[in-house]
Amino acid sequence: MLYFDNASTTQISEASLNEYVKASKLFYNPSALYQPSNEAKKALEEARSFFITKLKGKERSTFIFTGSATESNNAVLNSCITRKDKKYLITAGEHSSIYETAKHYKEQGFNVVFLPLDKNGSVNIEAIKKELDMSVAFVSVIHVSNETGAINDVKEIVNLVKTYNKNIIVHSDGVQAVGKLDINLKDLNVDYYTISAHKIHGPKGIGGLYIANPNKFKAFILGGGQELGLRSGTENLPNILAFKTAFNCVVKTDFSKHKAALLSAINTDCLLVSDHDCVNNIISICFSGVRGETILHILEQKGYLVGTGSACNSKAGYNRVLAEIVPKKYLPGAIRISFDKDVSINDCKKLGEELSLAVKTYREKISR
Amino acid sequence: MLYFDNASTTQISEASLNEYVKASKLFYNPSALYQPSNEAKKALEEARSFFITKLKGKERSTFIFTGSATESNNAVLNSCITRKDKKYLITAGEHSSIYETAKHYKEQGFNVVFLPLDKNGSVNIEAIKKELDMSVAFVSVIHVSNETGAINDVKEIVNLVKTYNKNIIVHSDGVQAVGKLDINLKDLNVDYYTISAHKIHGPKGIGGLYIANPNKFKAFILGGGQELGLRSGTENLPNILAFKTAFNCVVKTDFSKHKAALLSAINTDCLLVSDHDCVNNIISICFSGVRGETILHILEQKGYLVGTGSACNSKAGYNRVLAEIVPKKYLPGAIRISFDKDVSINDCKKLGEELSLAVKTYREKISR
Repeated sequence: MLYFDNASTTQISEASLNEYVKASKLFYNPSALYQPSNEAKKALEEARSFFITKLKGKERSTFIFTGSATESNNAVLNSCITRKDKKYLITAGEHSSIYETAKHYKEQGFNVVFLPLDKNGSVNIEAIKKELDMSVAFVSVIHVSNETGAINDVKEIVNLVKTYNKNIIVHSDGVQAVGKLDINLKDLNVDYYTISAHKIHGPKGIGGLYIANPNKFKAFILGGGQELGLRSGTENLPNILAFKTAFNCVVKTDFSKHKAALLSAINTDCLLVSDHDCVNNIISICFSGVRGETILHILEQKGYLVGTGSACNSKAGYNRVLAEIVPKKYLPGAIRISFDKDVSINDCKKLGEELSLAVKTYREKISR
Repeated sequence: MLYFDNASTTQISEASLNEYVKASKLFYNPSALYQPSNEAKKALEEARSFFITKLKGKERSTFIFTGSATESNNAVLNSCITRKDKKYLITAGEHSSIYETAKHYKEQGFNVVFLPLDKNGSVNIEAIKKELDMSVAFVSVIHVSNETGAINDVKEIVNLVKTYNKNIIVHSDGVQAVGKLDINLKDLNVDYYTISAHKIHGPKGIGGLYIANPNKFKAFILGGGQELGLRSGTENLPNILAFKTAFNCVVKTDFSKHKAALLSAINTDCLLVSDHDCVNNIISICFSGVRGETILHILEQKGYLVGTGSACNSKAGYNRVLAEIVPKKYLPGAIRISFDKDVSINDCKKLGEELSLAVKTYREKISR
């Protein structure tokens, strides 16, 4: 079975799992007072420094470990959406953990504005300019779309909004950017940045949140005051160290040839959503007249596991992000293919052929 | 090194860790549509049913997996503390994840009342009766105190408040009760019940929340709608299955002889907080004229790891729960000893002797 749904989740690597098992022996509560706990605490703080350094965080910034990127995203909105006289700009292409949370605030009467997308799924820059006024307090923009792979020019957006008003807080969800783009948070100049372990062959159940100004962050989960008082709950050292290992093992890979091989093998009518300005490892492609779920099952029988879009959107009955940018007739036939280094260029070509065949057979069956 | 701080955290068991490693192979996103994801989904739902069955949950109840008991506790308060015209009763003996969160709501203008404790750390029943009026909407009462081991009679309390007004919602934090008391949630008649994996030799980073009426629960973490729409974030199947294994391995052990052996060996002036109506595996004991932290370090040198109280309270500079019930002169000299089945009765006796000796030596040194 060849796995082409890496944007959904990845298998924990041997190195990361070994680190988890090893760290399980240092089980002591990092907040306790005896020596083994100090060792645990030391390992924890080293991991924190590791991430700040690797992400090139600002001076005085910090990084906290959470239970998931979803929690990190919820935490940012909880900290930032606080006043009814302010405006909060959220791109329509955000991950559900931002989008649904922002919608919840909007329903509570906060002035949340969802920004429209360009055809590839990136946010429309003109729309940001149009909404910018002195009431804007916060902007959330996903770095790489989990649906289409579209890259948002976070640096340009931060520059745009902070030039307008330096007090505007900007968050970026970088879950799909890690290992695909070079990340330099000092350069991006964001206030918050979210990352996840299980998308990069780390363990599930751990996310991270970069916080440029810890003093301005209001904790989301309260209690024993762990994580510098910014996120309570007994520290999950095995997961933290396994996350560190996974992050350290990430090798930026060029998937342009994989993408080209896949696309060149598709010889039937389709709409390529992941067209320009996208990472090469996520390909969103829509076929008219077919159901994505059926295509998925046909491909599964041939030995290929692909997605129909984010599992986090699977409950809605349609793909929320694609619905913003794709003509209606293409929506039911959406397929998301996401590579990792364990598939070859030839695998991608073969998948393209099988995909084409599946779509054509389906269409013929329907038209009969 | 003998570990006597099991109320703080425990080492993951071999069985639980093996299950984690095994489940790591079934890494597929349980919300995706292909067959391996269905397997993951099936294992997840079986784990959910397992916990509902084991905890003897009500019909139509559910159980969700969270990132920690701290998150479960935050989630309950987030769902229940919603109206400024209502009263919320929280015992002063709650774990920090309830206490600090409730304090936060109080600071925001909600009518949160903290209920005083009896000498052993259990809530004072008369205080509940005194506060009961038709504005009371919610009561949170810890099942077993993490500081003193005191058992709250949750069944009696639920009966008391629901007889007064059947609409009052009751939550109990059962983190320290699992494996120590028989738990029958139908019988306790609580609306919410929190449990944790890492206190029972399961993995860190996972908690559970029993929800009697899922329709009345407002999700705390929003996003992709996982966990029946009640807790978003990609499901952490390895942790969930490792939690299930740990829970399944719990054997209720009688520690009364351990406790008796420990206490009989202590022949110096002390205040035993964990006196009556306590579980036998947590012993809170205070010595006048000494500092708990120093005693902890002396015992560590002798090969015994003990606590000075919850790590979740360690930042405050004093122990919040003990401060409610212990005369001031005893507060700095608090020691918490918590057993597990890996220590023998003789180990407990020896610890008692070393503890006595440490206290006496310290006192002599000071008086010289």
